[in-house]
Amino acid sequence: MQEKQRTEIATLGEFGLIRHLTSDIRPQNSSTLRGVGDDAAVMSYPDTEVLVTTDLLMEGVHFDLTYVPLKHLGYKSAMVNISDIYAMNGTPRQMTVSLAVSKRFCIEDLEELYAGLRLACEAHHVDIVGGDTTSSLTGLAISITCIGDAPRDRIVYRDGARETDLICVSGNLGAAYMGLQLLEREKKVFEGQREAHPDFAGKEYLLERQLKPEARGDIIKALADNGIKPTAMMDISDGLSSELMHICTQSHAGCRIYEERIPLDYQTAVMAEELNLNVTTCALNGGEDYELLFTVPLSDNEKVARLDDIRIIGYITKPELGMALITRDGQEFELRAQGWNPLRE
Amino acid sequence: MQEKQRTEIATLGEFGLIRHLTSDIRPQNSSTLRGVGDDAAVMSYPDTEVLVTTDLLMEGVHFDLTYVPLKHLGYKSAMVNISDIYAMNGTPRQMTVSLAVSKRFCIEDLEELYAGLRLACEAHHVDIVGGDTTSSLTGLAISITCIGDAPRDRIVYRDGARETDLICVSGNLGAAYMGLQLLEREKKVFEGQREAHPDFAGKEYLLERQLKPEARGDIIKALADNGIKPTAMMDISDGLSSELMHICTQSHAGCRIYEERIPLDYQTAVMAEELNLNVTTCALNGGEDYELLFTVPLSDNEKVARLDDIRIIGYITKPELGMALITRDGQEFELRAQGWNPLRE
Repeated sequence: MQEKQRTEIATLGEFGLIRHLTSDIRPQNSSTLRGVGDDAAVMSYPDTEVLVTTDLLMEGVHFDLTYVPLKHLGYKSAMVNISDIYAMNGTPRQMTVSLAVSKRFCIEDLEELYAGLRLACEAHHVDIVGGDTTSSLTGLAISITCIGDAPRDRIVYRDGARETDLICVSGNLGAAYMGLQLLEREKKVFEGQREAHPDFAGKEYLLERQLKPEARGDIIKALADNGIKPTAMMDISDGLSSELMHICTQSHAGCRIYEERIPLDYQTAVMAEELNLNVTTCALNGGEDYELLFTVPLSDNEKVARLDDIRIIGYITKPELGMALITRDGQEFELRAQGWNPLRE
Repeated sequence: MQEKQRTEIATLGEFGLIRHLTSDIRPQNSSTLRGVGDDAAVMSYPDTEVLVTTDLLMEGVHFDLTYVPLKHLGYKSAMVNISDIYAMNGTPRQMTVSLAVSKRFCIEDLEELYAGLRLACEAHHVDIVGGDTTSSLTGLAISITCIGDAPRDRIVYRDGARETDLICVSGNLGAAYMGLQLLEREKKVFEGQREAHPDFAGKEYLLERQLKPEARGDIIKALADNGIKPTAMMDISDGLSSELMHICTQSHAGCRIYEERIPLDYQTAVMAEELNLNVTTCALNGGEDYELLFTVPLSDNEKVARLDDIRIIGYITKPELGMALITRDGQEFELRAQGWNPLRE
């Protein structure tokens, strides 16, 4: 552990702390009229619709501070909410941040967390407009609400997928899950349950995918620039299978996806081999990739195929056909959502 | 303890649970375009500004389930956020609700909590449009975001109070604090630290003020109906002294308030006597009354004086004069914020 300054939070109090953490935040969006410091933030959206998404992250359930640095935690917490706004085909604009912290945390810790939050917000031009900082008996809780906008005719829901639509994903899948496996292994080392030093060499990309995910605003922009409006869209937080089931269920449709079309990074494949895991299972159920899953009309086939970093992995069917994965050897397997679910045993 | 059914949350899982708790919610506001069930909720505010406020409530810090029934907790959690939108002179419209629950809680518990949330939302015509239900290692965490609207020229901030403005409060103060004292006494009985049974007779109002506070939408309506726009406004959550300091600091002003003008309920006075507490101190620092504190131009004196349930308690001064309470015998005491602060020791 490095030596660092430790200033107790009680020295500033609630209002002092919020001022300290947010005093130099300057709004970047013209829709932000008033931010931190009143009963509510004030925004203006005369010509577009307003999108709101929220997330509550609890220490020990959603993150483990043994191996996640606070700055990365802040970055990721902001990013997963920004990702939800993109998943509606919208533009993220404002964010509120509420923290509940136990006495274990000092002001320098919260500065680290905020540094990560702000880095993510700056990268996507999001204004922090308010929040709440309070105490907790045990551990850290982070609640984030992200506000964005989109013209009504550009908003993409989950329920618009139609038969013959193409199913597309951005980036690659399973890497964030592999990064988590690496970190869990590192934790066991840390706890003295294993002897060897962890070896991250050649696996930096997996760690980055787990610790510093990027919301795919670039894909949203590329789709708009190329005149493509998805018929349905989600971000992949719980795993491809789980998200695909949401789209199919809400769209009253079925689907076929091809195992060989699922985009994988080389490091993901190597790590799966090392851990003796089926890489397709990891890509289907791993979660936390924050890539975009969307469907487009068949007529957009050529336009989508031309775009970088987007892969067509299958197509939408009639609901009677169910949801299936077609393996490399041509067999059909029914898709099941085995994604991460914090409420199951 | 009464016998009740206990269904484990794991039987429904996250998505099943959200559907179960929100399936019969029907939007009441035309600004609510899409609620629960997508990456984000969608709202439309073409002609007014958007207000957003958020709160994170932690078990053991903000509420004690030994004496607060879950339905009341839900009601109060919603109400305190609704109150923040009124405090901007706005109209509350939508709400997102995130819950983190430990295994101690069952589905019936969350139904109770939601029943209270919904009762508060229905009373103020607020739509529940989204949220998150997840697990926690210890206890219950509730994060609520409330969204509202107001025409730009009607929004009231904290920084608009000017010299000679009149300081007004709605309702009466200190009752919620007295209700808390009653419940704390009851808890000691429950824990066997006292022998006698608690006696709530004649103190029902105090309990109600603590357990079932009402956001003062009626006052906002009365002010508008009578052509009064406050120059500054807040809701009283942390105590009159603390809130008055916010207004004076942000407005670069001082104030004088009169002890004899602070509105008190008869039950508050009786209870203070019983507990050997100074009733003025309780009214100044008690908090959780969720009454409105606002300032109006001196020229609105007659209009305000005619309104029910509003009391003029003092006036705004130059900043050099500081903030003071003038006691019944004419002495001046400097006001200090001793309100509840979860981050101080």
